[in-house]
Amino acid sequence: MTEIEFIGRFLESNIEYAREKFRDRDSLTVTSKKNASDLLTEVDLTLQKRAVEQIRSAFPGDEIVAEEGEFSKLPAHPNARCWVMDPIDGTNNFVRGTFPVFAISLAFAIHGRSVAAGMALPGTGDIYLAEEGKGAFLNKERLLVSQVQAVGEARLDLDFGGVEDRGAWLERGKELINQGGQLRCHGSAVSALAQVASGDLDAFVHMTLNPWDYAAGMLVVEEAGGMCSRLDGKPLRLFDGKAGVLISNGAIHKEILRLIRR
Amino acid sequence: MTEIEFIGRFLESNIEYAREKFRDRDSLTVTSKKNASDLLTEVDLTLQKRAVEQIRSAFPGDEIVAEEGEFSKLPAHPNARCWVMDPIDGTNNFVRGTFPVFAISLAFAIHGRSVAAGMALPGTGDIYLAEEGKGAFLNKERLLVSQVQAVGEARLDLDFGGVEDRGAWLERGKELINQGGQLRCHGSAVSALAQVASGDLDAFVHMTLNPWDYAAGMLVVEEAGGMCSRLDGKPLRLFDGKAGVLISNGAIHKEILRLIRR
Repeated sequence: MTEIEFIGRFLESNIEYAREKFRDRDSLTVTSKKNASDLLTEVDLTLQKRAVEQIRSAFPGDEIVAEEGEFSKLPAHPNARCWVMDPIDGTNNFVRGTFPVFAISLAFAIHGRSVAAGMALPGTGDIYLAEEGKGAFLNKERLLVSQVQAVGEARLDLDFGGVEDRGAWLERGKELINQGGQLRCHGSAVSALAQVASGDLDAFVHMTLNPWDYAAGMLVVEEAGGMCSRLDGKPLRLFDGKAGVLISNGAIHKEILRLIRR
Repeated sequence: MTEIEFIGRFLESNIEYAREKFRDRDSLTVTSKKNASDLLTEVDLTLQKRAVEQIRSAFPGDEIVAEEGEFSKLPAHPNARCWVMDPIDGTNNFVRGTFPVFAISLAFAIHGRSVAAGMALPGTGDIYLAEEGKGAFLNKERLLVSQVQAVGEARLDLDFGGVEDRGAWLERGKELINQGGQLRCHGSAVSALAQVASGDLDAFVHMTLNPWDYAAGMLVVEEAGGMCSRLDGKPLRLFDGKAGVLISNGAIHKEILRLIRR
């Protein structure tokens, strides 16, 4: 089984479980990790446990980096074969809210770079897949980023993150807030990256982001014709530590970088 | 037929039409009104036309204020019987996007105050209804706002509106951006007000807002136990001209007013 086959099968066999749990979210067991905005559910834990077991069985010896528990750290050997997972991104939206804006993200990386990636949006039933050099696909259809050419006409997901990010937003992000066409904040990086890849959003910005938040989305967007970088314009890597992240349709990438203060 | 019966029947008989058009949105006829973010579709026009015809037939002589065309102005007699409608709020999301965050809003007002109101969210199939003094209901179940007590733990929809609102956001809204627990911007005021009423959001803030954006949501939220005011804390009325709007669960209302610069 190839890595992309593994990812596709994992997402296909778990998307309905997450969707059912969202429908029945009032009976979820929810705990807070650090604060009221940093939540953990039985679904995060179950999905991560399933992935870890299946990766260990299919690809023994590979490293695993994931959002929850002991896996929530950078890999010991950043250049080795490594799986990067966010079991539920947008846990807050998963637990509370009218619209199902949350996602499952799973990527396989080597030399600190994703080469196979998938995201599942249980709310819509959509699965996004990409392999390096082979294009990105939504339910088997080729994905293509938007053609929007100017920030003033663009739809931007400005992810304000937690309160610790807000100072950066008000300083570095001020001009982007000032000039962006339509501003959105959906509260799920993975869902936003899926939308950049499908052309439904033109760019996504986050002042700090963990590798499991963008490991899959980064490759899917690039393979859909988009562009990814750090907020200082340098190449975005998976294990550089928490980096500011700009992921766009490519056409407005430089204009956004100019608007973000270094 | 009472006004609330009329509203309920109108929304019930049109929600499926809007939902089908969203599913088939790639074939919609879309025109820009003022700029790339101010869109108009055949669905806005059709829903408004249907409502106008049915109101004129059922309640002849009543005034009508609505978002599109000749109806997009304050009423000649602000204290008279008046219907206030937004045929599709969140037209941008209706035309483009993965998640169906848009809504139909219809209210009946007298003396410049909504006394019967309804909102339909075609994406979820939900219909929210309220009559003054009689509570608010979602698909017949009583609605109740959230019990969140502090801005730092709250989920806030900060609606950044168009570029013309951003200066106000960066000045007046700065501390709210800085201190709010989870920030969202969904791009549909009506959908956000429905979520405040159902307890899925704790507050909604907009620096300018037209009466058709909040005429229904305001009453639904109040009847669900929430609170509405202008951003200077004064009572919110329908026909005062474009007003800054704060609509909350009540518990965090004062704290938000303190954080917003006058």
